[in-house]
Amino acid sequence: MIDKATRVNQALDMAIPVKHPEKIHEAMRYSLLAGGKRVRPVLCIAACELVGGDESAAMAAACAVEMIHTMSLIHDDLPCMDNDDLRRGKPTTHKVFGEDVAVLAGDSLLSFAFEHLVKSTPAEKVNAGKVVRAVGELAQAIGAEGLVAGQVVDIHSEGVDGIGIEELEFIHIHKTAKLLEAALVLGAILGGGTDDEVERLRRFARGIGLLFQVVDDILDVTKSSEELGKTAGKDLVADKVTFPKLMGIEKSREYAQRLNEEAKEQLDGFDVDKAMPLIALADYIGYRQN
Amino acid sequence: MIDKATRVNQALDMAIPVKHPEKIHEAMRYSLLAGGKRVRPVLCIAACELVGGDESAAMAAACAVEMIHTMSLIHDDLPCMDNDDLRRGKPTTHKVFGEDVAVLAGDSLLSFAFEHLVKSTPAEKVNAGKVVRAVGELAQAIGAEGLVAGQVVDIHSEGVDGIGIEELEFIHIHKTAKLLEAALVLGAILGGGTDDEVERLRRFARGIGLLFQVVDDILDVTKSSEELGKTAGKDLVADKVTFPKLMGIEKSREYAQRLNEEAKEQLDGFDVDKAMPLIALADYIGYRQN
Repeated sequence: MIDKATRVNQALDMAIPVKHPEKIHEAMRYSLLAGGKRVRPVLCIAACELVGGDESAAMAAACAVEMIHTMSLIHDDLPCMDNDDLRRGKPTTHKVFGEDVAVLAGDSLLSFAFEHLVKSTPAEKVNAGKVVRAVGELAQAIGAEGLVAGQVVDIHSEGVDGIGIEELEFIHIHKTAKLLEAALVLGAILGGGTDDEVERLRRFARGIGLLFQVVDDILDVTKSSEELGKTAGKDLVADKVTFPKLMGIEKSREYAQRLNEEAKEQLDGFDVDKAMPLIALADYIGYRQN
Repeated sequence: MIDKATRVNQALDMAIPVKHPEKIHEAMRYSLLAGGKRVRPVLCIAACELVGGDESAAMAAACAVEMIHTMSLIHDDLPCMDNDDLRRGKPTTHKVFGEDVAVLAGDSLLSFAFEHLVKSTPAEKVNAGKVVRAVGELAQAIGAEGLVAGQVVDIHSEGVDGIGIEELEFIHIHKTAKLLEAALVLGAILGGGTDDEVERLRRFARGIGLLFQVVDDILDVTKSSEELGKTAGKDLVADKVTFPKLMGIEKSREYAQRLNEEAKEQLDGFDVDKAMPLIALADYIGYRQN
């Protein structure tokens, strides 16, 4: 997993060299290369290998998914959205480069993700039909049926009464699970997976995406700020709807347990060794303490 | 030409229906369906037909290019960029829907353009290899080597001394010509054009894209606001570098003439009837009075 993340970092670094106009390329690189666990790219490659493909078939897609993740962070941090000054302890892109360049860096990463996917996926290993399918899956994960849908419902729901489980799940499925889904589905498609394999990895991704948020909500009310390494209880302060608020702590824990098990069931029948990174990730997400 | 624009409008209307979450779909539609001459989509279809293709092979690409054009207008109008309240006499997207939704509507149109291109281009008429090529061309026209590059150099050049012809052309080639180029190149690729035909239409597009800006700059200093239907002389007020400022009015006119002729030369050898819409457009751009 660590080796994969290292190779992803190298590939991202090479994908966007600094050239004229320097400022926009520097802004794109600033946030893209700021670190992070590279969960999505690693999952993309793991899915590719799980269905029998070679890492090189999915590396461009893995980088593309990370570019999309990064652009969504840059735009979500803007003053007109969540207005965050810091991310992972560093000033956000608009704080360093200005709001105008931050908007443009996001736009540029968004379009470059597609350019990189189609130009850097090795044609000798992956036929064009698979690349076309991958473009469609990735695009759908971003827009008004993906990340954007989750963000627009989220920013218009804070402090609003009467939001139920359905809307809460809508937000998390779209803000978190959709891009995880794209990561795994792209890996499976480009690795030559069958339709059944692609759909099982899609369900796995939806499950762990939702699991991530349920656990996040539980930790926010049960852990101290010190244990979390970030401000605890901030969902309550922000008057945010959470799973514990809607179903209580115990039911939330049971729900998390069920999501974890159902996700892992999707991996039955795959090669156990190759499925290990995905099983480990589902357990990490389900049982993490911060 | 008018028939084509009408069919493009119908296709755009059908491409993005209003569904949950309504607000983001309404914001996408608001600007996309606000009218305009649909120059880019019409050129995309004309290029497809010029190389012997059928309109249906290029319609999804034509719509995709217009979605990209629209998203660039939405983001360029934002308060942190050009801060425009009105476009074509209507309040801009962020004035109607808020800045957050305007950023997201742009992002969503950008990703949906790729989704629409890959999912709505008829697979029975266009093979996947051509679609992959089209995705790469479109993506490159948008990001740090396309629209975004032009915009970032433009916003950092206003009022700056010492900008020469080279930088001015860089801005216009990237802000205007690149997407026109994508429109024609996509049409030619999807219509089954040879590499030579694709490259000739690429050069035609670059020529008329630059021509458009040279003529725009000339009109700004030679016409009254009444004749233009917009504020004349505003480039001077904004202290913007223009072609007349750098090379004088007469040399600018000669340059426009040369660009017009060189563009039309690229069409030699194509079927004259089918080339008519493109010749007419080059002349319209070159000889328009407002």
